[in-house]
Amino acid sequence: MPAFAQDLAAQLRVDAIRCSTAAGSGHPTSSMSAADLMAVLFADHLRYDFEHPEAPGNDHLVFSKGHASPLLYALYKAAGAITDDELLTFRMLGSRLEGHPTPRLPWVDVATGSLGQGLPVGVGIALAGRRLDGLPYQVWVLCGDGEMAEGSVWEAAEHAGDQGLGNLTAIVDVNRLGQRGPTRDGWDTGAYARRFAAFGWHTIEIDGHDTEAIDAALAEARGSGDRPVAILARTCKGRGVSAVENKEGFHGKPLKEPGRAIAELGGVRNLQVEVRAPEPAEPAAVHREEPVKLPAYEIDSSVATRTAFGEALAALGAARHDVVALDGEVADSTKLQAFADAFPERFFECYIAEQQMIAAAVGMQARGWVPYAATFAAFLTRAHDFIRMAAVSRADLRLVGTHAGVAIGQDGPSQMGLEDLAMLRATHGSTVLCPCDANQTAALVEAMAGLEGISYLRVARGETPVIYASGEHFPVGGSRVLRSSGDDRVTLVAAGTTVHEALAAADGVEGVRVIDMYSVKPIDAAVLRAAASATGLLVTVEDHRPEGGLGEAVLGAVEGLGVRVVRLAVRTMPGSAAPEEQLEEAGIGRESIARTLRELGVAG
Amino acid sequence: MPAFAQDLAAQLRVDAIRCSTAAGSGHPTSSMSAADLMAVLFADHLRYDFEHPEAPGNDHLVFSKGHASPLLYALYKAAGAITDDELLTFRMLGSRLEGHPTPRLPWVDVATGSLGQGLPVGVGIALAGRRLDGLPYQVWVLCGDGEMAEGSVWEAAEHAGDQGLGNLTAIVDVNRLGQRGPTRDGWDTGAYARRFAAFGWHTIEIDGHDTEAIDAALAEARGSGDRPVAILARTCKGRGVSAVENKEGFHGKPLKEPGRAIAELGGVRNLQVEVRAPEPAEPAAVHREEPVKLPAYEIDSSVATRTAFGEALAALGAARHDVVALDGEVADSTKLQAFADAFPERFFECYIAEQQMIAAAVGMQARGWVPYAATFAAFLTRAHDFIRMAAVSRADLRLVGTHAGVAIGQDGPSQMGLEDLAMLRATHGSTVLCPCDANQTAALVEAMAGLEGISYLRVARGETPVIYASGEHFPVGGSRVLRSSGDDRVTLVAAGTTVHEALAAADGVEGVRVIDMYSVKPIDAAVLRAAASATGLLVTVEDHRPEGGLGEAVLGAVEGLGVRVVRLAVRTMPGSAAPEEQLEEAGIGRESIARTLRELGVAG
Repeated sequence: MPAFAQDLAAQLRVDAIRCSTAAGSGHPTSSMSAADLMAVLFADHLRYDFEHPEAPGNDHLVFSKGHASPLLYALYKAAGAITDDELLTFRMLGSRLEGHPTPRLPWVDVATGSLGQGLPVGVGIALAGRRLDGLPYQVWVLCGDGEMAEGSVWEAAEHAGDQGLGNLTAIVDVNRLGQRGPTRDGWDTGAYARRFAAFGWHTIEIDGHDTEAIDAALAEARGSGDRPVAILARTCKGRGVSAVENKEGFHGKPLKEPGRAIAELGGVRNLQVEVRAPEPAEPAAVHREEPVKLPAYEIDSSVATRTAFGEALAALGAARHDVVALDGEVADSTKLQAFADAFPERFFECYIAEQQMIAAAVGMQARGWVPYAATFAAFLTRAHDFIRMAAVSRADLRLVGTHAGVAIGQDGPSQMGLEDLAMLRATHGSTVLCPCDANQTAALVEAMAGLEGISYLRVARGETPVIYASGEHFPVGGSRVLRSSGDDRVTLVAAGTTVHEALAAADGVEGVRVIDMYSVKPIDAAVLRAAASATGLLVTVEDHRPEGGLGEAVLGAVEGLGVRVVRLAVRTMPGSAAPEEQLEEAGIGRESIARTLRELGVAG
Repeated sequence: MPAFAQDLAAQLRVDAIRCSTAAGSGHPTSSMSAADLMAVLFADHLRYDFEHPEAPGNDHLVFSKGHASPLLYALYKAAGAITDDELLTFRMLGSRLEGHPTPRLPWVDVATGSLGQGLPVGVGIALAGRRLDGLPYQVWVLCGDGEMAEGSVWEAAEHAGDQGLGNLTAIVDVNRLGQRGPTRDGWDTGAYARRFAAFGWHTIEIDGHDTEAIDAALAEARGSGDRPVAILARTCKGRGVSAVENKEGFHGKPLKEPGRAIAELGGVRNLQVEVRAPEPAEPAAVHREEPVKLPAYEIDSSVATRTAFGEALAALGAARHDVVALDGEVADSTKLQAFADAFPERFFECYIAEQQMIAAAVGMQARGWVPYAATFAAFLTRAHDFIRMAAVSRADLRLVGTHAGVAIGQDGPSQMGLEDLAMLRATHGSTVLCPCDANQTAALVEAMAGLEGISYLRVARGETPVIYASGEHFPVGGSRVLRSSGDDRVTLVAAGTTVHEALAAADGVEGVRVIDMYSVKPIDAAVLRAAASATGLLVTVEDHRPEGGLGEAVLGAVEGLGVRVVRLAVRTMPGSAAPEEQLEEAGIGRESIARTLRELGVAG
């Protein structure tokens, strides 16, 4: 095997050079350092059926150092999954062989390229294998040494160590050189090993170009039982080509003399590697679907939308056995606790590690699970890059942000989600929902299960009146006109908490239309344009910053109509105060809205 | 001293109970666990002049567990900084004693309340003390045990260990109980100690209620030379009150029987603590300002705006000795390398740890430095929560995002900043700048030094033609009309890369006005409204998602005028392709704009 693996590694290096040369860009030297590691993995350890990437028993390989995509694609060629011709389309318009891997390729679970994300996602896939599916697959994550500086790597290390994920192996390609220059720890594999060990991992330090040592390490990793394994492999960037080997200044650049380099590596080869077949396996859990019995709330009762979220998700979990929930150690506040109590086996406590929470959800959906991840809306910003990359991963992900806006009251601005609508609206392919009452929340929680892409539910801390009957339908992209007459002179457009403020402000005032814009993206342009035409004046009211939220979404919907749109939003930095005080201080409370109406000449 | 410290600690507990009882909310039990730690710190170790919070020799105390604000404010009372009356305004409208500390209080450097941020910011303050100011102060960071799950804590640990920040002490209040329930590691202080040690810290495990042990640990910490120290203190949440001590379910709630609790603690006290005076000290570095000699670029030459950024910042650094720069291990790409080469003593390599990069910048500006932090625009999303909290900290911070948009080309979507405008526009008090040529970039880099709040510069990877003469003035909030006639029928509104696409599309077409909207926030509403009135039709072109960016900013500026606004933006998920192909695929390249003009009936 070692001789074959060495030959295969040489081929992988040559192909990495060839495809990056054809592209005129890419990362050949970062590929060459890891070629021996991956050659041995493919030759004797990976269990994967390339013709059936969906096979449950398949191992999972995540290239956390996604810039080593030339190596990944060279492996696919060697495994017979792609042709040499396709390999040479690398980075070209229309090619699925992108600069960094994405799930446009059926063998890629998740997109990488933002460093420090592969290992946290690998934790999610490994959790699915161990705790949900009961499948024997191994998750192999190829990491760079530079990305070990990302805190998210240590969130993953802690989680995997605590959960005893022996089915997870981190292979760290310690090639000493980052993009700009040497890494902090150079070839000190012990520095990394000590850190992984401190988080409960078994560690193996090897020469990453010694195929026998690699073989032994990978065998030890698969058999590690209940401890994740980190293989710290000392390697040379650009290994095998003297012009670039272990030299600075060659990150992310095709080689200058590819012909000479390929000759030095023994020329072009066309070895095929027989990747081991996966064990025949079926997931232990059967995904059943039954009719959902959502909780029902009485009209005029007071219920927080976060409470309805938790109770609805528990109801959904009873009906759909593929629903899982992830928490950032705030389930008592987000009310995800209702799900945790009912389905502890499908509840994942990620502690205060929002990046790991989102990454685990991404990993689980790659295995077909339907994850809901919840924390305070403010703290979802901690995972923004993971949400961004989840969109590149074409992930179906349900996010829930509670404690939205200044309406949380006394806790102050650090706990207020005031930027979440902007963040989630700008996420590609997203759906953004902002319910105002408990029954509407419950309906939308159920609807989210069927949505593709990243959907977001924004709910509030405080109790609000129930205004809709249980069982009412709230289509995504819809809205509700709550108050209207034949002679409206202004339309209040609100979502979530501010719906109730708008209704109160409209009380006893003639000619005020009120719209509950619970679907912020997609937004109900038809209803808004009708209101604009009918009333000629819109006032949007949102518990959010003026940028990127409801107000700007409404502007886009009524663009070109010439209607005036007054946007009430949170324009100052709040302090602490009671919820109703906060709303008025921010100019989005009922009195503020009423004052605005008077200033606009609508109310007396 | 121990007896006094114990009495003081009892007072702190009583006052934490009193103020949270008065507020009807807050975190007394999280305060009570750390009361002994902080009592000893104030009684014998902290060096601080409360009458002169700006004194350079002052120690810095960061409450990373910001929810323990009742303890912090009780300490301020004991130190004579606030009255008992003010203490009882806790969390009330208008009070500067917010639910979580902010710099509205002169003794607070930075806002906390989003966990895992205090230690990274403390690294920045400690770096300023050691590497910039040469001041003898100590930075004390009170951490919770729950927040140790945040990866940002380990980014900070790695940075401090590597930099040998002996002037930084983490005091971890290991009270075993998080918000929802027990932490992952409970009272296993060794678990935390092993992790800190693996990152190069000296660690001390103590009983956090043993005032003599605390005293010894704090003394050892200040004298630790070139190693940061982590004190892992085993404590009881709710310590001293039997109804809540070491019990679950009492996080973030005022006590039910405060009178009985206060009696159990020995009643209300009014001890005053004499905090030690700081050493008389002056910063070594003198902040000088000289006229800036910005780089000058020739009209019609091709220069990337990222290159101009790097060169301009180096020029600024020569003139202003208070300018510092922080990198996320991409200085060769962001071109921050020009500054690093010129001023290595003011350049901070944070490696691939964007959260730590922003946090260090926040810490440095708290000491009066003028930080510029740069990475790819896409990767600033990694630090979104830190940027959000920097706004709560009232920080003056300059952020630079390079490699904006699909125009980067082959690297693909993981590397494309497509959500950065939405993120930074929604940041409170921000300024968002998007230059299109090298001389404009240089001018804006200089302007940013004088801006308050968080300012953001978005620059591009590829070369673009220089269209402005060097020395031209580009006021923040301004714009440039690049093409106009007396008979314009449409206005193209662009920023950055798309300015050149718009100009090319307008070439040879009659009646097309072109505006360079380099200041996206604040935006030049007057010029836009004039264009809207004159041409009746606007087409915005941005290399960004349709939500939250230039297009929506323009909608807000021309709201109510009835002008049609066609928004060209990146509405699909890009793959890899050449830059000009990417622009056309996204519908924002010159041919796409020209086609849009034809469809709108403007061009033949």
